[in-house]
Amino acid sequence: MTASLDVPLHDEAADGRDVPAQVRAVAQRAKVASRALATATRATKDAALHALADALVAATEEVVAANARDLERGRADGLSAGLLDRLALTPERVVAIADALRELAALPDPVGEVVRGSTLPNGLRLRQLRVPMGVVGMIYEARPNVTVDAAGLALKSGNAVVLRGGSAAAASNEVIVGVLARALETRGLPGDLVQSIDAWGREGAVALMHARGLVDVLVPRGGADLIATVVRESTVPVIETGVGNVHVYVDESADLAVALPILLNAKTQRVGVCNAAETLLVHRGVADEFLPVALACLADAGVTIHGDETTLALAPEEVAAVPATDEDWATEYLSLDLAVRVVDDLDEALDHIRTWSSGHTEAIVTRDLAASERFVAEVDSAAVMVNASTRFTDGGQLGLGAEIGISTQKLHARGPMGLAELTTTKWVVQGEGHVRP
Amino acid sequence: MTASLDVPLHDEAADGRDVPAQVRAVAQRAKVASRALATATRATKDAALHALADALVAATEEVVAANARDLERGRADGLSAGLLDRLALTPERVVAIADALRELAALPDPVGEVVRGSTLPNGLRLRQLRVPMGVVGMIYEARPNVTVDAAGLALKSGNAVVLRGGSAAAASNEVIVGVLARALETRGLPGDLVQSIDAWGREGAVALMHARGLVDVLVPRGGADLIATVVRESTVPVIETGVGNVHVYVDESADLAVALPILLNAKTQRVGVCNAAETLLVHRGVADEFLPVALACLADAGVTIHGDETTLALAPEEVAAVPATDEDWATEYLSLDLAVRVVDDLDEALDHIRTWSSGHTEAIVTRDLAASERFVAEVDSAAVMVNASTRFTDGGQLGLGAEIGISTQKLHARGPMGLAELTTTKWVVQGEGHVRP
Repeated sequence: MTASLDVPLHDEAADGRDVPAQVRAVAQRAKVASRALATATRATKDAALHALADALVAATEEVVAANARDLERGRADGLSAGLLDRLALTPERVVAIADALRELAALPDPVGEVVRGSTLPNGLRLRQLRVPMGVVGMIYEARPNVTVDAAGLALKSGNAVVLRGGSAAAASNEVIVGVLARALETRGLPGDLVQSIDAWGREGAVALMHARGLVDVLVPRGGADLIATVVRESTVPVIETGVGNVHVYVDESADLAVALPILLNAKTQRVGVCNAAETLLVHRGVADEFLPVALACLADAGVTIHGDETTLALAPEEVAAVPATDEDWATEYLSLDLAVRVVDDLDEALDHIRTWSSGHTEAIVTRDLAASERFVAEVDSAAVMVNASTRFTDGGQLGLGAEIGISTQKLHARGPMGLAELTTTKWVVQGEGHVRP
Repeated sequence: MTASLDVPLHDEAADGRDVPAQVRAVAQRAKVASRALATATRATKDAALHALADALVAATEEVVAANARDLERGRADGLSAGLLDRLALTPERVVAIADALRELAALPDPVGEVVRGSTLPNGLRLRQLRVPMGVVGMIYEARPNVTVDAAGLALKSGNAVVLRGGSAAAASNEVIVGVLARALETRGLPGDLVQSIDAWGREGAVALMHARGLVDVLVPRGGADLIATVVRESTVPVIETGVGNVHVYVDESADLAVALPILLNAKTQRVGVCNAAETLLVHRGVADEFLPVALACLADAGVTIHGDETTLALAPEEVAAVPATDEDWATEYLSLDLAVRVVDDLDEALDHIRTWSSGHTEAIVTRDLAASERFVAEVDSAAVMVNASTRFTDGGQLGLGAEIGISTQKLHARGPMGLAELTTTKWVVQGEGHVRP
C-alpha cells in the first residue's frame, strides 16, 4: 500500500556526463545479472533472502548513521513531520524490514508454474510457463524500506531491480543497496541484481523511463505527480499504482449498525494510505437517521467533513463541516478529511463513483441482494467491497503475501500486486519435426 | 498474426477542429456504450456476432464498391501489389470475414470467469472475476479485415472498440463500421460500441494515444515504425504486437532430416508474417553436412541467402548468396530472404539470439535433452519451439481461438493474444461488516 508523498523528482544538476548511456549500462548489467537468477532454484533464492536479512541487521549501525544524515538534511530542507517519520530508520525498523525479507522467503516461488498446458491433436505439446520479467525498474520517494522490499520481491520472483529512490533518502539507500549487493555476492549471486541510479538524479530517472528493451517493467510508487510523470514520460511499460479516491456507499437498505464501523474503519483506521475512504455517499432514505450519528462519530475521531447541502444541514453543531466543491469529490485527501454527499438512489451513487473514482476500491453497505449485485457489476474498480471495509484492499489482507503496490490500471495487474505480478509467461512448444500444413 | 506494412500514419491536414476534444468525445461515447455490453450475456453477444456477419454479407455490394475506391486511389498512389492485395475485398473475402465472426460466436466467453476465489480465515469471501477492459483502441494499417476482426473480438470480450484504420482503407472502413454499428442497433446494442476515428487523420490517432482514462488499452498492428510511434507517443497502456526477428537453430545433435522440413516450413510456408524465420543458425559440427543441402533447397524455393563467411563458402554455386552484415542479423525481412550464420556451439547461438532477437519466437532442432532444456530456459522470447516450426506461434494453431495479435512484450500478454487478453480482473470481497483490526 502506498501513501502519497509530495516529494518531486529532485533535479540534481547535470554535469556533462552522458547520463542516458550510463543508466543504460546499469540496466544492461542488470539484464546480464538477471540471467543467473532466472534459472535459480527456490532454495537458492530463499537462502539469499535470509542472507540479505542477516546482512541488513548486521549493518544496522551503518544504515542508521546514513539515515541520520538524510534526516538532518530533510529537517534543514523543511520536510514535514510525516515525511521525516516515513524516512526515519531505527534499529527496530531495520529488524522489521529484515523480517519482511524472511517472510518473502516463506512464500511460494511463482517461477516455473505451468499456467496452461495441453497436447494438441497433432501431437504438439504446449506449456505456458511462468518466468521472470527480467529487469524491474522502481521509482519511488523517500522511503528506504521500499528499497529493501523491492529488492526482496524482485529477487524472489527471479528479477533484477534498478532502483531510483529519490534524493531525500539518498544516503540511506546508498548504504542499503551496497549491503544488499555484497550479501548477494556472498551467496554466489551477482551484486548487479540490486542497483541504484540515485547518483544520476532526475536525469537518471528519465533515462530509466526510456530504457525500453533493457528494463521490462517500471513501477512508480508515490504521489499522483510522480505517477503522472512516469506514465507520460516512460516508453518502458508502466504499472500505475496507488492513487485511491475511495468511496463508501451506504444504501437505503443498509444495516446502519454495520455501516458505521465500516465507515469509521475505512476513514480513520489509517489515513495516509490509498485504501482509506475519501468520500461517503449516503442514500437519501437513511440520511436523516445515519448522518447525524455518523458525522458526530467522525468528528470525535478528528475528521473534518466536506459536505453537500443536505449533509451540512444534518450535521450536528459540534461537527467541523465545510461545503464540498467538485475539488473535494476529486481529491484523495490522505488526511482526516471526508467528502460526504447524500444521493437520491443507487443510480446516483454509481454515477458519482463513475465520475470521480480513481478505480481503486469502492464499498457498498447494503442488505439488498439486487443492490449489491448491481454495485459489484457496475463499479469499474480494482476491488469492490460488499459490507466490508475498503482497508482490505491489500496483498497481505487478501492472502496474496507481500505486495509491491496496488495497481489501478487494467493491464497486467489490477489491485494488489504480489510476486506473480512480477513475472511473465513463455510458451514452450515441443514437437517431433512438426511443420505447419 | 500481423505482417508489416510500410504505410505510415497519413498526415491529413488539420482544419482547425479541436481534434483531441472530438476524439475524446468518441472515446467517451465508447465508454458509455461499453457499460451496456459489460453485463451482457454470452447469448446476447453471440447473437450480435451473427447479426454482424449477416449484415456484412448483405452489404457486400456496398463494401466492395467502397473498397474499389480505396484500390483505385491506392493504385494512383503507387501502392505495391502486395499492399493492394491486402487491401482488396472481394465478395468471397467478405464471406470469409463474416465467417470469422461466426467462429468467434462459437468460442467460450472469457467474461465472468472466476480466476481465483477463496474464503479467508476471517470469513471474507474473495473472488477475482474476469471482466471486460472497457474501451479498446486499435491502430492498424490498410487491412479492412482487421476492422471486422477487431470489432468482433472486442464485442465477444465485452469491450467497445475505437478504430483507426489508416487512410489507405478509409472508404472501405467507413462503410464497414457503419454496417456493423447499424447491425448492433438492430440487436438492441449501442452502435457506439464500434466507432472509427479515421476522419480525424493522424491527429486523431495521436489524440487516441493520449486518451488515458477513456481508452483502457491500445493495440497497434502493423509495421515496426507504426508500433514504435505508438509506444513512444501513447500514455494509454499499449500492447506491442508483431515484429518477429525469428531464429531457427540447428544443433550439432539435430536430426537433419527433421531440421530441413522445419527450416523450409519456417521460412517459406508464408513469408510476410511475423512467425516466419528470418535467421538460421547452424552448429559448426553439422554445417558441412547440412548447409549445402539446405541452401540448395532454400534456393529452389526462391530464397536469397545472406550468409556469414563459412556459409558462403559452403553454398553451392547455383545458390543466390550475399555476405551478411549486422543489418541482416537485425532485419525482419518478411520476404524470401534468410540470414544464415554458422556458430561454434549452443552458447554462441544463444548469444546471437540474445543480441538480435525481437523476442517473438525461436526454434531449436536437436536430439540432445540438455541442449533443448538450456535453449528453453535461456531464450527470452514469447514462444520457444523444440523440433517444431516457428509458424506454430499463432492463436489458432495453439488452440486459443481467434487472436488480436501476437504480443512481444512481457506485460499483460505474451505471445498470441486471444479473447482473455482483452479482459482484466476485478476483486469482489464480501463480508458481514468486516473491518480491519
